[in-house]
Amino acid sequence: MIRAGIIGSTGYAGGELVRILMGHKDTEIKWYGSRSYIDKKYADVYQNMFQIVDDICKDDNMEELADKVDVIFTATPQGFCASLLNEKILSKTKVVDLSADFRIKDQRTYEQWYKIEHKSPQFLDEAVYGLCEINREKIKGARIVANPGCYPTCSILSVYPLAKEGIIDMNTLIIDAKSGTSGAGRGAKVDNLYCEVNENIKAYGVAGHRHTPEIEEQLTYASGVPTVLNFTPHLVPMNRGILVTGYASLKKEVSYEEVKAIYDAYYKKEQFVRVLEKDVCPQTKWVEGSNYVDVNFKIDPRTRRIIMMGAMDNLVKGAAGQAVQNMNLMFGLPENEGLNLVPMFP
Amino acid sequence: MIRAGIIGSTGYAGGELVRILMGHKDTEIKWYGSRSYIDKKYADVYQNMFQIVDDICKDDNMEELADKVDVIFTATPQGFCASLLNEKILSKTKVVDLSADFRIKDQRTYEQWYKIEHKSPQFLDEAVYGLCEINREKIKGARIVANPGCYPTCSILSVYPLAKEGIIDMNTLIIDAKSGTSGAGRGAKVDNLYCEVNENIKAYGVAGHRHTPEIEEQLTYASGVPTVLNFTPHLVPMNRGILVTGYASLKKEVSYEEVKAIYDAYYKKEQFVRVLEKDVCPQTKWVEGSNYVDVNFKIDPRTRRIIMMGAMDNLVKGAAGQAVQNMNLMFGLPENEGLNLVPMFP
Amino acid sequence: MIRAGIIGSTGYAGGELVRILMGHKDTEIKWYGSRSYIDKKYADVYQNMFQIVDDICKDDNMEELADKVDVIFTATPQGFCASLLNEKILSKTKVVDLSADFRIKDQRTYEQWYKIEHKSPQFLDEAVYGLCEINREKIKGARIVANPGCYPTCSILSVYPLAKEGIIDMNTLIIDAKSGTSGAGRGAKVDNLYCEVNENIKAYGVAGHRHTPEIEEQLTYASGVPTVLNFTPHLVPMNRGILVTGYASLKKEVSYEEVKAIYDAYYKKEQFVRVLEKDVCPQTKWVEGSNYVDVNFKIDPRTRRIIMMGAMDNLVKGAAGQAVQNMNLMFGLPENEGLNLVPMFP
Amino acid sequence: MIRAGIIGSTGYAGGELVRILMGHKDTEIKWYGSRSYIDKKYADVYQNMFQIVDDICKDDNMEELADKVDVIFTATPQGFCASLLNEKILSKTKVVDLSADFRIKDQRTYEQWYKIEHKSPQFLDEAVYGLCEINREKIKGARIVANPGCYPTCSILSVYPLAKEGIIDMNTLIIDAKSGTSGAGRGAKVDNLYCEVNENIKAYGVAGHRHTPEIEEQLTYASGVPTVLNFTPHLVPMNRGILVTGYASLKKEVSYEEVKAIYDAYYKKEQFVRVLEKDVCPQTKWVEGSNYVDVNFKIDPRTRRIIMMGAMDNLVKGAAGQAVQNMNLMFGLPENEGLNLVPMFP
Repeated sequence: MIRAGIIGSTGYAGGELVRILMGHKDTEIKWYGSRSYIDKKYADVYQNMFQIVDDICKDDNMEELADKVDVIFTATPQGFCASLLNEKILSKTKVVDLSADFRIKDQRTYEQWYKIEHKSPQFLDEAVYGLCEINREKIKGARIVANPGCYPTCSILSVYPLAKEGIIDMNTLIIDAKSGTSGAGRGAKVDNLYCEVNENIKAYGVAGHRHTPEIEEQLTYASGVPTVLNFTPHLVPMNRGILVTGYASLKKEVSYEEVKAIYDAYYKKEQFVRVLEKDVCPQTKWVEGSNYVDVNFKIDPRTRRIIMMGAMDNLVKGAAGQAVQNMNLMFGLPENEGLNLVPMFP
Repeated sequence: MIRAGIIGSTGYAGGELVRILMGHKDTEIKWYGSRSYIDKKYADVYQNMFQIVDDICKDDNMEELADKVDVIFTATPQGFCASLLNEKILSKTKVVDLSADFRIKDQRTYEQWYKIEHKSPQFLDEAVYGLCEINREKIKGARIVANPGCYPTCSILSVYPLAKEGIIDMNTLIIDAKSGTSGAGRGAKVDNLYCEVNENIKAYGVAGHRHTPEIEEQLTYASGVPTVLNFTPHLVPMNRGILVTGYASLKKEVSYEEVKAIYDAYYKKEQFVRVLEKDVCPQTKWVEGSNYVDVNFKIDPRTRRIIMMGAMDNLVKGAAGQAVQNMNLMFGLPENEGLNLVPMFP
Repeated sequence: MIRAGIIGSTGYAGGELVRILMGHKDTEIKWYGSRSYIDKKYADVYQNMFQIVDDICKDDNMEELADKVDVIFTATPQGFCASLLNEKILSKTKVVDLSADFRIKDQRTYEQWYKIEHKSPQFLDEAVYGLCEINREKIKGARIVANPGCYPTCSILSVYPLAKEGIIDMNTLIIDAKSGTSGAGRGAKVDNLYCEVNENIKAYGVAGHRHTPEIEEQLTYASGVPTVLNFTPHLVPMNRGILVTGYASLKKEVSYEEVKAIYDAYYKKEQFVRVLEKDVCPQTKWVEGSNYVDVNFKIDPRTRRIIMMGAMDNLVKGAAGQAVQNMNLMFGLPENEGLNLVPMFP
Repeated sequence: MIRAGIIGSTGYAGGELVRILMGHKDTEIKWYGSRSYIDKKYADVYQNMFQIVDDICKDDNMEELADKVDVIFTATPQGFCASLLNEKILSKTKVVDLSADFRIKDQRTYEQWYKIEHKSPQFLDEAVYGLCEINREKIKGARIVANPGCYPTCSILSVYPLAKEGIIDMNTLIIDAKSGTSGAGRGAKVDNLYCEVNENIKAYGVAGHRHTPEIEEQLTYASGVPTVLNFTPHLVPMNRGILVTGYASLKKEVSYEEVKAIYDAYYKKEQFVRVLEKDVCPQTKWVEGSNYVDVNFKIDPRTRRIIMMGAMDNLVKGAAGQAVQNMNLMFGLPENEGLNLVPMFP
């Protein structure tokens, strides 16, 4: 039985981690960390867990935690994990960091976009970018996994096969993303009040969102071409779900069948990436509550561009689900243990 | 392995049954009945099931089905099950009917409220009203179970202990219920379009909703007093969830502790009924996707009434989840097999 | 031209007041009070007012304001208006208080339910309860009008004719109300975040909501019978709208036509109260953005009760619209000036 | 007093036209056409109009109508207006066609994208594309105005100044649009049911939406460069609103101030196009119920692209509001008569 500790267990991603681990037969949650609710019953914060979780929220002591658990999940704001991590902790336990601290290999890029100093640059090399479908083998041996951002997960998986195979001109890539509101977190802010979000849609972080360099770095690795792109997120009045619409120019003329074959080559064996049938557009509702990413594409011969689409539950494959998938890989468990979640509809 | 057949598998309740049975380790769905989509791939109707369900939709032939499966779920409009059921079918297979056909023991009441002739009154006595927490023992031996209506499940479970213990004056009982829109089904009607339901709330079926006699009959059994009540459902802009607010006069002065003790006596051992802590009001979101009913109450000394509240997912405990719970009882399986669904939040 | 000042102009009710007064041809807003946003452009707080309102938010100085305007609207928390009001202010300007400070005539009841000391009890007698359809004549001469609460407006207007005419047994009255989330205000609270409210419904303030004594007092006046009732509000995932479902026992048998005649007698000449046609249930969407209250009823011969229903926009007739209606009466303007707002659908 | 007739008055755009014309002091609606509801009270179809509109729905006879009204609005599916229009009608009355029939000057393009034969190509030259801010003078003298599509209105107005001034490379233009569900009409379709749209987002009509050639044609006129672009609409769970996010490469380096000056040059005098302040992203909620289009832009020096954004109410500026604006121009009325609608928030 793997003993798990969650720091930041009362945020939305943390709460989803609890939900998923409740259905994981080889894991036991030993520590519900929550700086805001120390000594409060976890089920008083998340009433859905009433009579399911009886534990009390604890503080953030990573060193103490390292003695008690086999894996620590940090579902915390950027800077937190990097500021506490040390060799002693890593010698005792594995870490899956759901924050951005170890996602970007280039320290300067991280510091520039996140506007904080990186406190543990010594682990940047070691940390593995936990996009399971792409870095599976490296994850298996990792002590520390940087769980990818929600937007990057959906964006990269939607574009990856074409970037890797050199089908698209990386200099033309534009990603227009739409997210449900749980991505904005559980902090009490006027902007996220029901009445401000409902019946509304807006772009935000235009030409400056922090997930941009993460997507660029990974697609640069994939394509071998230094990739700079436009990434525009939008806030959508729904709880969960990310939809990505990507645009890029084709480097040469390709047929539907050729592109389909490429996607299939990369994803046919992947349980959690579903390449939809021709002309079926991904919808966030079709993956809600599950670890799936649904992808598809459409070639536009008029503009010689390809439109790449992906849909995902931002809290599952975009956060907690992928974290568990990473844990499964790190501990040699079946990759889908606890993750055979059937999407809930409607 | 129990072989299951679902008639009406492409309605919302039918779809939920598929979702739940996917996680049931002792059941295999052998028949996806859907009159509207015969020969179409099930996953083309419900894209969330892509790469999960590969089957094709079939017609409604109950006799043929009886030869192939151990249990038939009929998630069909009223009249369907009653019109096809016969002794031969019941001799071969068990039936869980999610429609209203066998819920009301009094044939005349059924015919009056549903405005159709009952085609199988001979099974009315035999059919067991499948409210598991109340009729558990009878369900175990049943060949045919009438799966309770969504509103009645939530209403009865919220009121039952007080009705049974004679705490409330049954002549004063009023139930004001609020339901998400999936309860209205998947038929293409203007009234259920997004733009008509969103940002809107209304009562409907006032003083005439068909779930009224079902609630009355069960509460009459519970209280021993002929119960006639007001039941008013409302349509709420959300996909899932039923909230019930019940009002009744107290027959004598009682304390919070006394009433709490009564609820606990009935539900403490019940996994799927959670009696919340003092002053915590049930919320539909806290039970979404799960088989729980959350109940609580508040005594109002000013009016000498008690307010009883219940929250539930209409498609799970109010339909498919309870149907599986009934199946588990009928087949001697653990009652919660496939039903340890953790509520999804947010 | 009436010069108006609004204190609390950046709350939802204050913002709605601005919207409505923009279309009022005899009024000019001279003061946008907002303690939280002093010196900030109003249109930076409410971007919908960009290029419509150019003013800057000011502080709360009622004395200064009294010198500059003909009417002050206080859209502020309870206690504010009562703590600042004095004879000098009232000698210079009229006041429409959107808070609860002067709604309840009985000081002790106010202090008990609102748990604060009343700082201006000397004006309680003078203040007129501004339910225009009922107190029209008194409002015309008033210096200070207590603008009714949102729930009370809808509740009282739905029940009033039957209470007044002695048709219902006031001891049996139960009001089950449902409100959109703007009623909860614009404060940054976790409970009102999009993800907490969306796909959710709950009761709150059960047997203790502060609008209860306000409804009771007015219905006591109407019926001549000391009225104690159950009032249960619910939070619904929509921005605007209140729906009220009231239940009471009939004192004697009445026909649909008789009751309809009573409602018509009270409301036929009222522009803002629409008695719907037989069997049409009020829906909040049908009144959104307008000053209408739609009411209707259904007699249930089985229980000898009558179900009374009302729908209203909580920010218009439930707050800002009624405040303007009161102002019109106080200044001898046509009662509907600025209020011929056609409901927006969808 | 202008006498107006509306064909298709019970669709969402038709209903909005009624709402707006109710507040237009120089117009009287003489004909509520609705093929689906002939002889039914208009207010029975749209209960919000109860006691506001007393008329009965009539059929679609354009010839009869031409004798009775000064202007006909056709809020009908494509093909309808073109199939009935003739010289006799136009000699008696003006026509504002809200369908696509006369928007595209090139008959072949129309027939190719709409897959129907054009029945009145003889009026294609005469018809004026009714984007008021751009074709104002032509509209004034027109007998027939083609009211622009909702997506094109928002897309073109967001991009127009930069296309016209040659700032952007028209070959790189990509428009990613998001629309509320009222854009899908009031037809009873499963895809538009509440439960299918709520908590969901999807792209549709990818690389094939019919508004594409309309946008391309207008931007070709504006830029003088044959423009072929990608246009991808998305369905968003909200009633109203369109948000457009456009991407294009800059032909040369420009500063924020230079671009702002261009937008201001085009729109400063326009009441209904608001160029927002720096870094403020348009939100659909800030324009809801009004005739405004809010636009803004962001230069991304990293990719040398500019992101252009626009937000609008699809039923107002995107349909009925613009139709009234066109009518005002055609009849020599103040352009904003009936259109000083303050956006409703929240």
